[in-house]
Amino acid sequence: MKSIKVAIAGPRGRMGREAVILVHQTEHFELVAVIDRKYDGKDLAELDGFSGIHAPIYTDIERCFQETKPDVLIDLTTPESGKYHTELALQYGVRPVVGTTGFTEDDIERLTKLAEEKGLGAIIAPNFAIGAILMMKFAQMAAKYFHDVEIIELHHDQKLDAPSGTAVKTAQLIADIRPPKKQGHPDEKETLQGARGAEYDGIRIHSVRLPGFVAHQEVIFGGNGQALAIRHDSFHRGSFMSGVKLSVETVMKLQTLVYGLEHIIE
Amino acid sequence: MKSIKVAIAGPRGRMGREAVILVHQTEHFELVAVIDRKYDGKDLAELDGFSGIHAPIYTDIERCFQETKPDVLIDLTTPESGKYHTELALQYGVRPVVGTTGFTEDDIERLTKLAEEKGLGAIIAPNFAIGAILMMKFAQMAAKYFHDVEIIELHHDQKLDAPSGTAVKTAQLIADIRPPKKQGHPDEKETLQGARGAEYDGIRIHSVRLPGFVAHQEVIFGGNGQALAIRHDSFHRGSFMSGVKLSVETVMKLQTLVYGLEHIIE
Amino acid sequence: MKSIKVAIAGPRGRMGREAVILVHQTEHFELVAVIDRKYDGKDLAELDGFSGIHAPIYTDIERCFQETKPDVLIDLTTPESGKYHTELALQYGVRPVVGTTGFTEDDIERLTKLAEEKGLGAIIAPNFAIGAILMMKFAQMAAKYFHDVEIIELHHDQKLDAPSGTAVKTAQLIADIRPPKKQGHPDEKETLQGARGAEYDGIRIHSVRLPGFVAHQEVIFGGNGQALAIRHDSFHRGSFMSGVKLSVETVMKLQTLVYGLEHIIE
Amino acid sequence: MKSIKVAIAGPRGRMGREAVILVHQTEHFELVAVIDRKYDGKDLAELDGFSGIHAPIYTDIERCFQETKPDVLIDLTTPESGKYHTELALQYGVRPVVGTTGFTEDDIERLTKLAEEKGLGAIIAPNFAIGAILMMKFAQMAAKYFHDVEIIELHHDQKLDAPSGTAVKTAQLIADIRPPKKQGHPDEKETLQGARGAEYDGIRIHSVRLPGFVAHQEVIFGGNGQALAIRHDSFHRGSFMSGVKLSVETVMKLQTLVYGLEHIIE
Repeated sequence: MKSIKVAIAGPRGRMGREAVILVHQTEHFELVAVIDRKYDGKDLAELDGFSGIHAPIYTDIERCFQETKPDVLIDLTTPESGKYHTELALQYGVRPVVGTTGFTEDDIERLTKLAEEKGLGAIIAPNFAIGAILMMKFAQMAAKYFHDVEIIELHHDQKLDAPSGTAVKTAQLIADIRPPKKQGHPDEKETLQGARGAEYDGIRIHSVRLPGFVAHQEVIFGGNGQALAIRHDSFHRGSFMSGVKLSVETVMKLQTLVYGLEHIIE
Repeated sequence: MKSIKVAIAGPRGRMGREAVILVHQTEHFELVAVIDRKYDGKDLAELDGFSGIHAPIYTDIERCFQETKPDVLIDLTTPESGKYHTELALQYGVRPVVGTTGFTEDDIERLTKLAEEKGLGAIIAPNFAIGAILMMKFAQMAAKYFHDVEIIELHHDQKLDAPSGTAVKTAQLIADIRPPKKQGHPDEKETLQGARGAEYDGIRIHSVRLPGFVAHQEVIFGGNGQALAIRHDSFHRGSFMSGVKLSVETVMKLQTLVYGLEHIIE
Repeated sequence: MKSIKVAIAGPRGRMGREAVILVHQTEHFELVAVIDRKYDGKDLAELDGFSGIHAPIYTDIERCFQETKPDVLIDLTTPESGKYHTELALQYGVRPVVGTTGFTEDDIERLTKLAEEKGLGAIIAPNFAIGAILMMKFAQMAAKYFHDVEIIELHHDQKLDAPSGTAVKTAQLIADIRPPKKQGHPDEKETLQGARGAEYDGIRIHSVRLPGFVAHQEVIFGGNGQALAIRHDSFHRGSFMSGVKLSVETVMKLQTLVYGLEHIIE
Repeated sequence: MKSIKVAIAGPRGRMGREAVILVHQTEHFELVAVIDRKYDGKDLAELDGFSGIHAPIYTDIERCFQETKPDVLIDLTTPESGKYHTELALQYGVRPVVGTTGFTEDDIERLTKLAEEKGLGAIIAPNFAIGAILMMKFAQMAAKYFHDVEIIELHHDQKLDAPSGTAVKTAQLIADIRPPKKQGHPDEKETLQGARGAEYDGIRIHSVRLPGFVAHQEVIFGGNGQALAIRHDSFHRGSFMSGVKLSVETVMKLQTLVYGLEHIIE
């Protein structure tokens, strides 16, 4: 198999750093350049934490595209840079794989049109953890047969909001497919307020916050004499890299833009 | 909705008993008769454990079909009776839902032909636990993205064989879809023999046998920084009834025979 | 070992029935009589569900004690009968093992005095599930080293109150031992009310209610880079019988009354 | 409370680095020096990864003790250095907390004598994860009441040996306390070899090896109608630090040497 030539924007960020290692270690990927706000003209290997990983550093993304002609751009920067880079990449014939949020529906529409005009694939995904995407997909499928379901999500105790975005999105996907249902006993009573958790369209969501944990979620279905549970554990941010890898491989075969990893997972 | 008229063969067996209760309690089902080796002409309500559940008892299944004209026959008897009843049901225009094993490929072929000639649905399923079917389905889907997987099944300590049939079937479904893979470290060593479990095409299976447990299975996938687990718990045999119910509803819309509940679950 | 002679009050109740089977199947126990409101003079084996288990039925507990001279009375009746039977047993030199609730502190004090005067053991326990008792004990021990803890309890959806009594008792035991602590991030926010569960002295409790489940609880501690979880599953009411058995054995060695199984478990 | 003055040997190792952060962040601990093979006379804050954490670096441990007079030495170096440092620390009136293995029974005896002569505390622990120690302790306690138990341990797939040392140690602790028992059905059969796992004195041990996992173990007890499970998850090496902290606090109150964290945990 011919190698896929990859450029990475934002190599010194937490996610970018993981992406550099991923591309470096994947046999059929080749790291041809990185785009950074600093260190123009240096070799990535000179920077702290990248010893042995050689790639030219560019501060000017257009010059990077012209000189290194990557097949794919992995962008793990900020919402603003992400948008700008995505558009430029398509202009230069480079397929973007973008992990930033903040794209509006208008942005997506415009970029999709551009991708199709150019006949290029593009993938934008707010969540690259394949396991989490599958968990949501399975939960939605199971909800067709099991109408009673509760969600327990567990995160480190530095997380400010409860429930997590993934928990709410899971509940939405379930609510889309199952008939409306008020769960639990009609006369159930909380002797301590909040015991039964948050409610989203009849689905109960429980948020656990404990030091030591990272990001975990369990979707539990109950039925006559049985239970079905789907659990995803994210132990560290490397969990996103399997989705980045899949996206780089998949974007080469697309001629349009796909928003959300769930649409390239069957 | 018009009620579905149901006859049940084997009402005094463990599964049959649950089926009687299911049909009795389901609003759009109507129990029109039961077929038993004994008690011809009696009312089911007279028998131990069925008080208040009225239905005529027949020892002659053909007379039962002629007189009560059921839409569906639920058969939870023995392999021999099951085959015989299935054929007779189709002859009499009754859709069979059969939970016995022991059908050969020839049997299935012959009965499928008969069902299609008559334009009738028929469902034969060795396992009616929808949760278990979904677990296997999800495991197979996940194996496309996660190639490292182990299966832990837990049963009561009166179970003789290990691993369980469901565990082996799950491993087969996974092996069908993922590229062949020898898991674990190439140089891994068992300092106590058997620690790494049984192997099925590179997939490890671990069988736990403990008093108190019923029938449980967890399929665990591991990937870069993450894990995805699918678990099914069967707490008592009522777990089969959701599948029986779905089958009765579905068989009314079929014009052929379906073998295996997985083919009517999307 | 000489057999322990056991009488059982309330043999036809759900728990009593399990106790009869327990005593019948335990080698060094001997079922000498049962006390029931009905069927005086009959043999237990004549009653529905007890075939082969022979024991005389008494409606008069005093006559029962006089004629069959049991070592131990297992009482699984009602609060009122339980109190009355406990006192009578001690008067007749029979050691009571009682599973009913409703004893006041005064009752306990009075009965303890009586037991000590007679030099007899007595055990009264609202909860006979050894696994649940151990879970609470371990949770309390762990709380000395891990101050961050949440409780998840799962029950069938016919349960009316949330959280469960066991969950609240577990929280109390933990609160007794750990320094007061407000868990989670000081600025955490519920975007859906109730997500963070009920609070008991800073400890979060989450109550899941789903069909299929029986009675389950998990106590989860989090610390720097690690988690410790203790889980108890009660799959059916037989789970109480290990505690009844232990109590019958232990009550023979006591010369006082013990309230609560936790005091005979080390 | 007066601060405890701490010196750390091996600050640049993976564990040492965590210990430096622990001491730096703990209010009543004070980092007075570090001992390293290199960088004598420099400030720790000058080294990569320690910015803002000031402490003098010594290559000569004796001079370190003389000049900075620590209360406690945390040693996370190698077996040889560990032994040498422990002895020197006691000679200089410094209480050692040592995380290296390789001490013989003779070493322990000699160092205990020395500690008692000097009236100083000393703690040597091969495993500082309090959660793992508690898991083993609870498992041993539960084994008194539940004689049926299996152990499942899950590690990353780079681990070479199976089962893990912790799993074997847990089985030993259980075997010490429960009566000998052959678990499972007497006639059970493996249709795939190894399904029932490894056996240690009748206890089954199952070793799961999957990418993404770190170090996890579950001890599952089964009884009549119930299960009791104790699970420890080690998500990253920070899990050892709670034990180091407890040891530093405890060693100040001891006048002898303690080998094994389990002896300072009640």
